[in-house]
Amino acid sequence: MIHILFLFTLLSSTSYASVNDFCIADLKGPNSPSGYQCKPPKTVTVDDFVFSGLVAGNTTNPFKVALTPAFVTEFPGVNGLGISAARLDMATGGTVPMHSHPGANELLIVTKGKITAGFVTPSGPFVKNLRPGDVMVFPQGLMHFQVNSGKGKASALLAFSSANPSAQLLDLLLFGNNLPSDLVAQTTFLDVEQVKKLKPRFGGRG
Amino acid sequence: MIHILFLFTLLSSTSYASVNDFCIADLKGPNSPSGYQCKPPKTVTVDDFVFSGLVAGNTTNPFKVALTPAFVTEFPGVNGLGISAARLDMATGGTVPMHSHPGANELLIVTKGKITAGFVTPSGPFVKNLRPGDVMVFPQGLMHFQVNSGKGKASALLAFSSANPSAQLLDLLLFGNNLPSDLVAQTTFLDVEQVKKLKPRFGGRG
Amino acid sequence: MIHILFLFTLLSSTSYASVNDFCIADLKGPNSPSGYQCKPPKTVTVDDFVFSGLVAGNTTNPFKVALTPAFVTEFPGVNGLGISAARLDMATGGTVPMHSHPGANELLIVTKGKITAGFVTPSGPFVKNLRPGDVMVFPQGLMHFQVNSGKGKASALLAFSSANPSAQLLDLLLFGNNLPSDLVAQTTFLDVEQVKKLKPRFGGRG
Amino acid sequence: MIHILFLFTLLSSTSYASVNDFCIADLKGPNSPSGYQCKPPKTVTVDDFVFSGLVAGNTTNPFKVALTPAFVTEFPGVNGLGISAARLDMATGGTVPMHSHPGANELLIVTKGKITAGFVTPSGPFVKNLRPGDVMVFPQGLMHFQVNSGKGKASALLAFSSANPSAQLLDLLLFGNNLPSDLVAQTTFLDVEQVKKLKPRFGGRG
Amino acid sequence: MIHILFLFTLLSSTSYASVNDFCIADLKGPNSPSGYQCKPPKTVTVDDFVFSGLVAGNTTNPFKVALTPAFVTEFPGVNGLGISAARLDMATGGTVPMHSHPGANELLIVTKGKITAGFVTPSGPFVKNLRPGDVMVFPQGLMHFQVNSGKGKASALLAFSSANPSAQLLDLLLFGNNLPSDLVAQTTFLDVEQVKKLKPRFGGRG
Amino acid sequence: MIHILFLFTLLSSTSYASVNDFCIADLKGPNSPSGYQCKPPKTVTVDDFVFSGLVAGNTTNPFKVALTPAFVTEFPGVNGLGISAARLDMATGGTVPMHSHPGANELLIVTKGKITAGFVTPSGPFVKNLRPGDVMVFPQGLMHFQVNSGKGKASALLAFSSANPSAQLLDLLLFGNNLPSDLVAQTTFLDVEQVKKLKPRFGGRG
Repeated sequence: MIHILFLFTLLSSTSYASVNDFCIADLKGPNSPSGYQCKPPKTVTVDDFVFSGLVAGNTTNPFKVALTPAFVTEFPGVNGLGISAARLDMATGGTVPMHSHPGANELLIVTKGKITAGFVTPSGPFVKNLRPGDVMVFPQGLMHFQVNSGKGKASALLAFSSANPSAQLLDLLLFGNNLPSDLVAQTTFLDVEQVKKLKPRFGGRG
Repeated sequence: MIHILFLFTLLSSTSYASVNDFCIADLKGPNSPSGYQCKPPKTVTVDDFVFSGLVAGNTTNPFKVALTPAFVTEFPGVNGLGISAARLDMATGGTVPMHSHPGANELLIVTKGKITAGFVTPSGPFVKNLRPGDVMVFPQGLMHFQVNSGKGKASALLAFSSANPSAQLLDLLLFGNNLPSDLVAQTTFLDVEQVKKLKPRFGGRG
Repeated sequence: MIHILFLFTLLSSTSYASVNDFCIADLKGPNSPSGYQCKPPKTVTVDDFVFSGLVAGNTTNPFKVALTPAFVTEFPGVNGLGISAARLDMATGGTVPMHSHPGANELLIVTKGKITAGFVTPSGPFVKNLRPGDVMVFPQGLMHFQVNSGKGKASALLAFSSANPSAQLLDLLLFGNNLPSDLVAQTTFLDVEQVKKLKPRFGGRG
Repeated sequence: MIHILFLFTLLSSTSYASVNDFCIADLKGPNSPSGYQCKPPKTVTVDDFVFSGLVAGNTTNPFKVALTPAFVTEFPGVNGLGISAARLDMATGGTVPMHSHPGANELLIVTKGKITAGFVTPSGPFVKNLRPGDVMVFPQGLMHFQVNSGKGKASALLAFSSANPSAQLLDLLLFGNNLPSDLVAQTTFLDVEQVKKLKPRFGGRG
Repeated sequence: MIHILFLFTLLSSTSYASVNDFCIADLKGPNSPSGYQCKPPKTVTVDDFVFSGLVAGNTTNPFKVALTPAFVTEFPGVNGLGISAARLDMATGGTVPMHSHPGANELLIVTKGKITAGFVTPSGPFVKNLRPGDVMVFPQGLMHFQVNSGKGKASALLAFSSANPSAQLLDLLLFGNNLPSDLVAQTTFLDVEQVKKLKPRFGGRG
Repeated sequence: MIHILFLFTLLSSTSYASVNDFCIADLKGPNSPSGYQCKPPKTVTVDDFVFSGLVAGNTTNPFKVALTPAFVTEFPGVNGLGISAARLDMATGGTVPMHSHPGANELLIVTKGKITAGFVTPSGPFVKNLRPGDVMVFPQGLMHFQVNSGKGKASALLAFSSANPSAQLLDLLLFGNNLPSDLVAQTTFLDVEQVKKLKPRFGGRG
């Protein structure tokens, strides 16, 4: 038997040496344009490939929604693999406001309730009422939203074509900072009073 | 107002002309290494971005499982976006046998029941008992399986880092064709009797 | 000499056959996720590699800006090359309002005047007063703006990391369509009066 | 002359500073999704671009084959370049059993003898008898094999579309570990006796 | 058995429909930035994956070398796979003059004789005497050469990280066309007499 | 208000944690195939996204040209973004000799004067007289040149499809090193006297 094992070791020596089938993120090391550095292969266990916690979040907040991410920062096993997931929960009346993901396409898979979702483009909006079993795709960088348009709770699972998608929430971008209100008004055509009214709601000053 | 509209048309003329934010698959045209050709932008509607039917499949079959895909061939909106989804249903005792996806990483998001899932590599197997809320990642090209290890039904949602993943089911590869049984035995070290026993079960001859 | 030529033909026969060093867009054919199909190599001339017209545009419009693109739809030589250009002209007081490019990083190279430019992210804004000789980079998908903050005209050259960047102008996205004003207000937290006020300015209804 | 040199230094200052035409692997540093970190350019010599040792391996083993790799771990010059090579030697009767490369396409260039090679897909097998001068391509992630089907020795050179391909040998995956035999049988439809018979041959337990 | 087959068909229905594991070039159709369109899967046979003819070429020519390519135009099975091959034969005194491959890294695997090979960079040349069993890598776009520096024939196998590499032979670029000799001299610093002397040897005029 | 802020923090927690919208180069750290490691997000300021100094260079040198780069080594904000810029200034009679960029497509945007530019391919040269407002594209790896063909100064802005393009100046490659003149002559078909004449001009020996 030794001989056969020896041969397999020989044949697959590179795999044994580098276990180059995956690259678990070493989150303590630096990031790079292709993702995080790999943990030493010998320290990898099955738990690096499993994320536990894609469960309902707490929607007791003004927006009545909760987003629970399983991105590379929570789930180092997806490092370099161009995929990640999240769970969205929406209480009655919940809204995920306009936002975009600069480097990730998104799939929204409705699992409960009724969700009205859509994205807006220069050539027009694409909006749909979705039910469980419906999947909607939001191409990267496009501004989109989700609204619980049913009478009870709604939930969905999300998949992203990036291990590390960021979310650009429009209100936070426009009103959650210290840009002068005049400049925000000038570059958005919003009334400056509107800007000043929303700034404190989203943590901005000026 | 005309002037403002004119300017916006000017500023975004390329977008108007080509609507290059997405590329809905023209499934009647040829495929290419980067995906299908794009449908003419003017014919695109919101329904191109929505797939309806990610619902429970019929598990009344010997394997007691059903896989419902939302790949580019069913869901042309994901063309070129590097992402797709599927739903997995498993009756009691259901098994998804060993298989791999040559060009797609997979996320398995358990939504009901108890699923034992794992993948095998030259340096060892990675196996885990999964419950709702657990997510497991299977890196591309690695042989993996899922077993309903609970007492009732189980189901999961799958996401893939490809618009068009293929599934390579090991038994179908080895036994579902007309390769001579001797050659299969020689290249797998299985007993030729084992090969001959399984060939008819998977549609193979020889 | 024939022999030498023959050898070179032999050595470079693939190049002669397919001229695979470039892929000039056949704009009459379909688009694909990787770009347009290639024109037949024998029909390619030097003019396919040159765009003439990156000159000052007409800024006599409400925004007092003009954008002149050299994207693949005007400049088929950049097809598949991941690069394109544009020229920006701004009269006194001109503003390019908030917008993003979903699939393209942008370089802004100021050539005249004074431009205040910036982009906004969840962790804060990045804004700078720019003078000729200054270059600013706007990563893909991030919302950004440019304002002529000087006393005379301003101009800049733009480069994009895509042959076919689209521009997502925030006002056009939010107000230039027939989304119900209530839905826009709900998903942006803008006052519905603000939405209704801006809709007609940007061509929207509802 | 100094002036000319000065100009060239100026013109190519970036190249001098970073020698960014290549990225020799620093195998002592961490790996990343895009490959290993680069050695400091000043320490690079021609020997980093040359691998010596793609010679016949020892086929005195039960499989009568030898694989000699020139992957990034042996040949740091291919780091980040998406290519590597190997040499395959097969004694009379030698067999490379079913295996796949999850992230690499493979070319098999027969240089001696007669090799029967093939890969299996869900829609059928593709098998061919190959002679010197024949090249066969195995797309990434597909299960394939090679058999010395001639009367003497056979050899081939292999090229891969990855600097660091791994080999997934089916028997090692299924039988070379401590997965319970029942689970292997359940997920492969092999008889449990077959599994138990092969486990000790490939180093597995249980 | 019908049920099992039915399930496998179900499970792998996408694969059956699109056979998306490969994309054999339809060389009669247009090229695209990602490669040629795919042949209809049903017309694919094993011969699409095999190229026969990587044999010694005729070196009875002034350069005493022959290059036999297996690129996508001869070997449609490598379409979209980022890999191809060629065979190089060199008679005594044979020389492959300075050339580069704009979009492909190259491996040179010496199989017979003695070859002196090298590439030149702004920071210096990298040259090595190679023997059978030696592999040298030439990063994309770098100018390189091979000389038979032994006493007899030499040969090598080449692998490229592109399905469709082009060869840019320096002499053909500079002297094989109708660029005015003055312009060539001005942009190369060669004496105009040198340019005029070489033009007729490489088919150029002017 | 706290609740709203809390929700936004929750919704965008990944962004806050990793600011993964950009990756400013840490030039003190190692390079990798995908670019430099990222600076810690908390240390990033707007100045990381701005390069000041794309101004006219000193053309008082034998070639009468100056190139001012804004590559990742000067402008760390473009790290991983696949784009960079440079400015070219040419005094009367100035010439940028034959050179190529192995991994970057180039756009030349003429801003002043008259520039004759072109590139050479195996199937012929592509040359054009360019004026302000003209843009020419040079596909990666192709040998190209620029000549000030007007009566006064000329200048242009350059954009590259790489954060870190290298320049391969033909004369420096051939004559700026210690390759034996005989070898250079043998592999270029230049007269050895021509080689020996040019070597000292470009810093070469031998």
